Amino acid sequence: MNKLSLLTGLFSVLLLTGSALVKAQPTEEEIVAELREKAMSNTLAYDILETLTTEVGARMAGTPQDAMAVEWGVKKFKELGFDKVWTEPVTFKTWIRAQEAAVLVSPYPHKIRITGLGFTVPTPLEGIEAEIVHFKTLQDLIDSPADSAKGKIVFISQKMERFRDGRGYGPVVKARGQGAVEAAKKGALAIVIRSIGTDSHRLPHTGMMRYKKGVKKIPAAAMSNPDADLLERILARKKPVKMNLKVYSHDGPEYTSYNVIGEMTGSEYPDEKVVIGGHLDSWDLGTGAVDDGAGVAITMAAAKIIGDSKYRPKRTVRVVLFANEEQGLIGARAYAAKHKVDLDNHVTGAESDFGAGKIYAFASNVAEDNLPVVKKMAELMKPLGIEYVDNKAGPGPDLIPMYSLGMSVFSLRQDGTDYFDLHHTEDDTLDKVVPENLSQNTAAYVVFAYIAANSEQKISRGITKTH
Amino acid sequence: MNKLSLLTGLFSVLLLTGSALVKAQPTEEEIVAELREKAMSNTLAYDILETLTTEVGARMAGTPQDAMAVEWGVKKFKELGFDKVWTEPVTFKTWIRAQEAAVLVSPYPHKIRITGLGFTVPTPLEGIEAEIVHFKTLQDLIDSPADSAKGKIVFISQKMERFRDGRGYGPVVKARGQGAVEAAKKGALAIVIRSIGTDSHRLPHTGMMRYKKGVKKIPAAAMSNPDADLLERILARKKPVKMNLKVYSHDGPEYTSYNVIGEMTGSEYPDEKVVIGGHLDSWDLGTGAVDDGAGVAITMAAAKIIGDSKYRPKRTVRVVLFANEEQGLIGARAYAAKHKVDLDNHVTGAESDFGAGKIYAFASNVAEDNLPVVKKMAELMKPLGIEYVDNKAGPGPDLIPMYSLGMSVFSLRQDGTDYFDLHHTEDDTLDKVVPENLSQNTAAYVVFAYIAANSEQKISRGITKTH
Repeated sequence: MNKLSLLTGLFSVLLLTGSALVKAQPTEEEIVAELREKAMSNTLAYDILETLTTEVGARMAGTPQDAMAVEWGVKKFKELGFDKVWTEPVTFKTWIRAQEAAVLVSPYPHKIRITGLGFTVPTPLEGIEAEIVHFKTLQDLIDSPADSAKGKIVFISQKMERFRDGRGYGPVVKARGQGAVEAAKKGALAIVIRSIGTDSHRLPHTGMMRYKKGVKKIPAAAMSNPDADLLERILARKKPVKMNLKVYSHDGPEYTSYNVIGEMTGSEYPDEKVVIGGHLDSWDLGTGAVDDGAGVAITMAAAKIIGDSKYRPKRTVRVVLFANEEQGLIGARAYAAKHKVDLDNHVTGAESDFGAGKIYAFASNVAEDNLPVVKKMAELMKPLGIEYVDNKAGPGPDLIPMYSLGMSVFSLRQDGTDYFDLHHTEDDTLDKVVPENLSQNTAAYVVFAYIAANSEQKISRGITKTH
Repeated sequence: MNKLSLLTGLFSVLLLTGSALVKAQPTEEEIVAELREKAMSNTLAYDILETLTTEVGARMAGTPQDAMAVEWGVKKFKELGFDKVWTEPVTFKTWIRAQEAAVLVSPYPHKIRITGLGFTVPTPLEGIEAEIVHFKTLQDLIDSPADSAKGKIVFISQKMERFRDGRGYGPVVKARGQGAVEAAKKGALAIVIRSIGTDSHRLPHTGMMRYKKGVKKIPAAAMSNPDADLLERILARKKPVKMNLKVYSHDGPEYTSYNVIGEMTGSEYPDEKVVIGGHLDSWDLGTGAVDDGAGVAITMAAAKIIGDSKYRPKRTVRVVLFANEEQGLIGARAYAAKHKVDLDNHVTGAESDFGAGKIYAFASNVAEDNLPVVKKMAELMKPLGIEYVDNKAGPGPDLIPMYSLGMSVFSLRQDGTDYFDLHHTEDDTLDKVVPENLSQNTAAYVVFAYIAANSEQKISRGITKTH
């Protein structure tokens, strides 16, 4: 036996030993497939959501329930056995909803179901009583003569269209955000828009609006879709229509809430993390089941299932429950400000914030040489009925600030066909959530987070390093 | 030619002449089939309903809109060209809805969407704040010990089941009608039931409740189904649950409204009439589109189409828009009290008061020897997808008093699968009505009313006379 033979022999022994060891430990694919099935076969996410919606419920930023939600988050992370749990303060201005009501005074008296838009100024106690001036779209208002709304209440009637991917939202939501400013520029006393939503219930949709320096602040509200239909029918009769609008909601004091963070520590590169999460705040009308209790529950459950595995992935899975998303990504901005120094360790991330429908597709936004990792995910997503789309993913809302700094993101796309029936309304309650759909979402986040956290390649949007 | 031949010859001539005349005038079947197709091919009923819901809207008995609805009814009958239009006074006690609100105080603070039940007494201004005691059914409450609800707020959680024929209503609606009495007997301070309805929206269902002489009057309200789900989840945690209930609604003064009546006069027996109609009042929350604007519109449209025919039926078609059905068939009782002297001329009738769904079946309640007339109707109903059921029809609510006196009735059965989603809620609005379904209903009432009004036999429940 020459030296070469000896070496070859030794090498063979090592190889055999190696494959024996490999046999003892399942492959990554086997591990992830098993965790995926575990996620599919239980209702962990639904159970988490049940406690959040039942024991906290509506949790608008700055309300007592905001603090209850933070407490719930910390306690729930600990109960679930997360390795590290902590909070990070987030300070913001608040807004307090008080009584709100509207009636048509003439030509036909009707109660109109409205809700104040976030950060609207109040009307006088006696309300604002004025004639309605109707614009079909925000653009029609913008294009109208300088005094087109002088002394009147602007009504914008554009309807949101229903799509699986929610693309009907973008074209109409500007009326909510910018309507008050544009109406005030035309001399309006107030604005009431058709709700930004796809339902036909007497449940108006709230959401943020903005004022602009130098433009008069006027009260802004939304009416339910059936009320808007009624108002359009009355306006079609070509008689002057007068409304009395009472909105007593008003600004509140500054408030400090918290991003709530839980981690399942990685086995090899614990400082590097895959970030998943949702936002912990909701609007005040519903109990925030689909916006965004579902996202909170799905991502907590996914990390829990990964953390419970005998085979911890190399990197940490971090779940961030962002504070105050609804009133302007306040928690997300605070997170980015604090963690930008650690940007390189934020390997990639995905936020769940589009309700509780099944995931039907996913997209990545990673460096070209990470695509083999994405392919691996795609194979493991297929049994969930999820197809890979492209490498042009955008971030969920709370990952926008980190994405802007350069962080890689994934987008796990939920069926949002019914999402805007419930979004920002009193109807955002647990009964709208199908437990099996949350399990499927959890399974998809398990696949994404495990593969991303366990990859040899460190995922990034730029040049990829390998350990 | 002998006398016999001559006679036979003459008879043949007469027969021929006769059949020539018959040719000139279409058969009854042809006339009705044509009117039925006319009803199917236009949106007359929907157009009538559009004006009622838009120009009047919610019209609870005793409110200013009750008077507006009466005015609307008279005007609409006249516009439609009815031969006779008049009103008959109906006097009743009223009830006024004021502010109503509920919150769970502990263990978890939640707003609970409630509505006061009709004729509830008010709470004190500060509300009633007490522990919840939960009963699954009214029967469980009745069967509980004497002081089972002492100092507490009773919650009855039984859910209504969804069926096409609405048979889920009967078993649960007793909790609304009798709950306050049974709860008071057990020492309760107030009662809040799960809404009698099949939807999952934050829109509670109102409806009548009753007090009993000698039993303390306690406030009574209903909460929306999602709120009841939430409360049940909280109660499952086995901690004391405290609610604050504020109901400021209260009794009002006596009021006189009107049954509004329009007739298309019969060509041979104008004093004999077939009665169709609906009730003109609604609850105050929605605009009464399906309860019972639809019934009003369907029957007005059917009579209009019959009245416009060149071939008027022998008897009069009378449309009665009953006052104040919701608070106890008050208009219907007044009608029966006034018209019982004319009972023999009330040949038969049918009320439309089960929403705006398609009619899928009809039943009669007539003397045996009227069944050939019913068979004729059945043949003409078939193309509308309507099957004949049996001769055991019960009356629509507003025909109960006349039926009790012995009047014959028909029942045209609407698909009520979704009816109790909307019934007595804010969501009872025009957008829920499919115009084509109203046309199908109108066509069915055309068939029923024309055949009944034109029959040689005078329809009745007892021995039948033929003119």
